[in-house]
Amino acid sequence: MTVPYLTTLHADDLRAAGIPEPWSFGMADKVRFGEIDALQHVNNAVYLKWFENLRILYFDDREIWHIDGKRPKVVLRNIGLDYRSEVKLTDRYILTGRTTKLGTSSFTMEYAVWVEGRLTTTSHAVMVMLNEDNTKRALPDHIRQMFIDRDGAVAG
Amino acid sequence: MTVPYLTTLHADDLRAAGIPEPWSFGMADKVRFGEIDALQHVNNAVYLKWFENLRILYFDDREIWHIDGKRPKVVLRNIGLDYRSEVKLTDRYILTGRTTKLGTSSFTMEYAVWVEGRLTTTSHAVMVMLNEDNTKRALPDHIRQMFIDRDGAVAG
Amino acid sequence: MTVPYLTTLHADDLRAAGIPEPWSFGMADKVRFGEIDALQHVNNAVYLKWFENLRILYFDDREIWHIDGKRPKVVLRNIGLDYRSEVKLTDRYILTGRTTKLGTSSFTMEYAVWVEGRLTTTSHAVMVMLNEDNTKRALPDHIRQMFIDRDGAVAG
Amino acid sequence: MTVPYLTTLHADDLRAAGIPEPWSFGMADKVRFGEIDALQHVNNAVYLKWFENLRILYFDDREIWHIDGKRPKVVLRNIGLDYRSEVKLTDRYILTGRTTKLGTSSFTMEYAVWVEGRLTTTSHAVMVMLNEDNTKRALPDHIRQMFIDRDGAVAG
Repeated sequence: MTVPYLTTLHADDLRAAGIPEPWSFGMADKVRFGEIDALQHVNNAVYLKWFENLRILYFDDREIWHIDGKRPKVVLRNIGLDYRSEVKLTDRYILTGRTTKLGTSSFTMEYAVWVEGRLTTTSHAVMVMLNEDNTKRALPDHIRQMFIDRDGAVAG
Repeated sequence: MTVPYLTTLHADDLRAAGIPEPWSFGMADKVRFGEIDALQHVNNAVYLKWFENLRILYFDDREIWHIDGKRPKVVLRNIGLDYRSEVKLTDRYILTGRTTKLGTSSFTMEYAVWVEGRLTTTSHAVMVMLNEDNTKRALPDHIRQMFIDRDGAVAG
Repeated sequence: MTVPYLTTLHADDLRAAGIPEPWSFGMADKVRFGEIDALQHVNNAVYLKWFENLRILYFDDREIWHIDGKRPKVVLRNIGLDYRSEVKLTDRYILTGRTTKLGTSSFTMEYAVWVEGRLTTTSHAVMVMLNEDNTKRALPDHIRQMFIDRDGAVAG
Repeated sequence: MTVPYLTTLHADDLRAAGIPEPWSFGMADKVRFGEIDALQHVNNAVYLKWFENLRILYFDDREIWHIDGKRPKVVLRNIGLDYRSEVKLTDRYILTGRTTKLGTSSFTMEYAVWVEGRLTTTSHAVMVMLNEDNTKRALPDHIRQMFIDRDGAVAG
């Protein structure tokens, strides 16, 4: 794999790595020793941390961390994961993510894990944007438009 | 909370702790410092570890670890989690689990997290029993019957 | 093991579990699936989390969390660990801890891990008490005296 | 920081990043969200995982994983860590490691963590090479010589 680790991968990088459309945002990483469990594969809980890592890079790239000059609180409301095949200690992987649906205060993201162009794990999650007092906060218009323009998100 | 930690809780214990039917298997635990993330609540990935902890106690209790004298390989195929409310550093919690559906080699489990009788998190997961070579292994009849008798599981 | 999990064990409980003097504060716990690494034993980093768990119970028991009505910031300055023998998936263990030396703002703690009365791991750590602005805070006199009276700590 | 992540950094790369001699082996990485604890800094246990990550890259680079055609068992006997200053969520860091002392079956490694050329954390650890049956295994001569030639290790 010649893509750089831990930095934003764009559509061209992903196509070159054998990852199909419509994915256009990704990040490469390596399986760490501490992510392997007693069954000698990546532990099921670790994938949630991987998607969290991707989300932070994505939120930073998409200006979500900088709304009105400060970082909004964005929390996970629900998540589903489908473990298609194991990921192992020696594997390098690419994570991809995109926003597919928009609610008033929430948005749905999809994630995937790729090992040598093979899809190993998929996930979809609903995120909610909150005010400081944990009440729901409407997604700003420019953020909604960015999700539509760049990821093809639709109102849900 | 007067229930003991880390040991099997039965229907009577759960009712006394304010947890309704049909839950009849549970375990109490405490939130650990290392389970809190930068948002000052239990990290979303930690719940998967909690359900794993519960599953190990449950599999041991239900003789699943002792089929034909050895421990079968049981892996997670998919999981869904619904985060209803936060769990915090000082919280003590009770996990509950039960098997609700049976396939040929697979079974569906449901999980819940309770803090002072309040439901904070729910989850459902599909587990698959495998042979040593990772091919699917049919659930033994006595295991199927146990899931039906004790948890009210139905063929799915 | 008949001692309860996750609650304070006193000198009598520890003696009954085969743990010698001068240990007089402990907590029992079980090895979790997620604490086992690819070498099939408890991962070396996990012990630091165990001592952190013990420390929180200890600080609570010794009123350290309630100085002047609020929780002081106590951080780890350095730590040493000696891994004498492996701890395995099925093991139940008892952690013990005590404060042995006192500085002006710092104190030295010693920790041990016991599996069926056998000492598997030892550790010593220097903790520092800080003000909100991360400057050093002198240990209050009643805390110093408590460490001397209950743990036999000496000025270092 | 312009150095690539998760790949071997050599002496020249390290000098360019402001890291002094004699360090000649390193790896760059980013702090992950899940590594931050309730005190809003990298948790003390996480550093052990970081040094483990570095060790795996180092062992691979130094042919330790390929002795006589198979991976030897190398375990941690003891470790000490000195936390000089906090590492925070937004930080990128470089890990450095080298072998300084040789025993018959053991070797001492030193580690350091650097954030923007500033030393935040240091550590030294004794590793032991074992046979399959967990008896001690003498370090092969070519491995001893490699530690001497490349890291300046001395017989301890």
